Amino acid sequence: MKSYLEKLKSAQERNNSWLCVGLDPQPDRLPLEAVWKWDEPILPFNKAIIDATADLVCAYKPNLGFYLQWGAAGIIALERTIAYIPDHIPIIVDCKTGDIGHTQAAWAKGLFEHWGVDAVTVNPFVGAEAVLPMIGERPSKAVYMLARTSNPSAVDFQGDLRQQQGLSAEVLRRSQGWATAGHKGYVIGATYPEEMAIARELVPEASFLIPGIGAQGGDLETAVRYGPDSVAGPVISASRAVIYASAGLDFAEAARAAAQKLRDQINAARG
Amino acid sequence: MKSYLEKLKSAQERNNSWLCVGLDPQPDRLPLEAVWKWDEPILPFNKAIIDATADLVCAYKPNLGFYLQWGAAGIIALERTIAYIPDHIPIIVDCKTGDIGHTQAAWAKGLFEHWGVDAVTVNPFVGAEAVLPMIGERPSKAVYMLARTSNPSAVDFQGDLRQQQGLSAEVLRRSQGWATAGHKGYVIGATYPEEMAIARELVPEASFLIPGIGAQGGDLETAVRYGPDSVAGPVISASRAVIYASAGLDFAEAARAAAQKLRDQINAARG
Repeated sequence: MKSYLEKLKSAQERNNSWLCVGLDPQPDRLPLEAVWKWDEPILPFNKAIIDATADLVCAYKPNLGFYLQWGAAGIIALERTIAYIPDHIPIIVDCKTGDIGHTQAAWAKGLFEHWGVDAVTVNPFVGAEAVLPMIGERPSKAVYMLARTSNPSAVDFQGDLRQQQGLSAEVLRRSQGWATAGHKGYVIGATYPEEMAIARELVPEASFLIPGIGAQGGDLETAVRYGPDSVAGPVISASRAVIYASAGLDFAEAARAAAQKLRDQINAARG
Repeated sequence: MKSYLEKLKSAQERNNSWLCVGLDPQPDRLPLEAVWKWDEPILPFNKAIIDATADLVCAYKPNLGFYLQWGAAGIIALERTIAYIPDHIPIIVDCKTGDIGHTQAAWAKGLFEHWGVDAVTVNPFVGAEAVLPMIGERPSKAVYMLARTSNPSAVDFQGDLRQQQGLSAEVLRRSQGWATAGHKGYVIGATYPEEMAIARELVPEASFLIPGIGAQGGDLETAVRYGPDSVAGPVISASRAVIYASAGLDFAEAARAAAQKLRDQINAARG
């Protein structure tokens, strides 16, 4: 069985890409003429985006919240979207789950076994119990723990990572001691470049999931410099900048063009 | 429009109860003979539990993870469970959501508008953005922020609340400054009694959601002493101890008996 990092590396090499596309359907941004003819517009929208970008990405990242806003109908669309994504492309479900042990075991059962996805974002507020039931005994799976999030209010509680102090630094340091069969990766926002350099020092071997490159204006050079781990490149994620590149009938071609441009920018920065 | 705390208080008075029952369906614990005859056993199980306890509780708390372990089928059952709960009983969806702003807006849309629930648990790791898009402008809704969780590994990152230092203390203090139309409550585990006393000092007016009373062995006296806020009593939550009181055909009657016993224990402690 391939490890998560081996699968990620294969996908990165096959498409020459470190770009991950976030599949985050928003009711008010779905292209009206193109998909509202369907009773349930999310799945046809996602299928068109996947068809248009599957040779340009190293992963897809659907965010649970954007599906749940449609209630159960949205989760049905998510389930079918996951089934539609080609097997060789890693799927990271962004749900920032972080409950106590027996609840995390239920999340893991749903995400890793029922849906068969490769990785999940995890919020470590409750400690080791958020992680161990998920990947403690799953060698082919991974979690990405929140370490430094990409948003402005990240500073409220995450401390001063530049000084290696506070919550973000503690998460990076302490979680290194948790023994897991699966891979422990981290979410590090591209919007905090100095912090990313320190994070790479603290966890030299961990995969980084890097949001904040697209609509949030994060720093691509830093992501390329400090992103790679010992096996694979980072997962550099953009959502809105790709999937809503056009609100017209050409939304899929526009998404392809935006993904290609981002992939090429990343590759140019890699040199 | 009633505020969340007014609705909670009404439900508490109507049933003379501070007990909240967690609706957390686990595949291996559903009573085999009683509900596995159904293609989809979760909804008939939940309906029987609700029918048996609706006059004994002040709230129901379904935990998203236990539904998602069945994929979309589980979320359909959750949606129907929420619709089945009588309107006068507050529903708290336990999902510990904590994403950046525009994603939290999507969660809020699904939970508060599509499903119409009353309150949601929130993980404040990302800061104010986890809370403001949810209840900033929703006067009848509430969040319960994780402050001190009930699990053993809570100590990994939550600091020393007894000394008013670290993450839990920071969450309680700093979030007081966030201006919201809806109510800001907190999750405080009954398994940390000294911490609960300090938490009540730091946030005198906030509703407490108190897990850890049932299977986790938390302290009921402390919950009753420090739980009440300026308007209502606390929401004291038990899941496994009630809904899995029996694995036989009598599961609903056994759940009723367990809920009644817990409610009466709480009321005896209230004196």
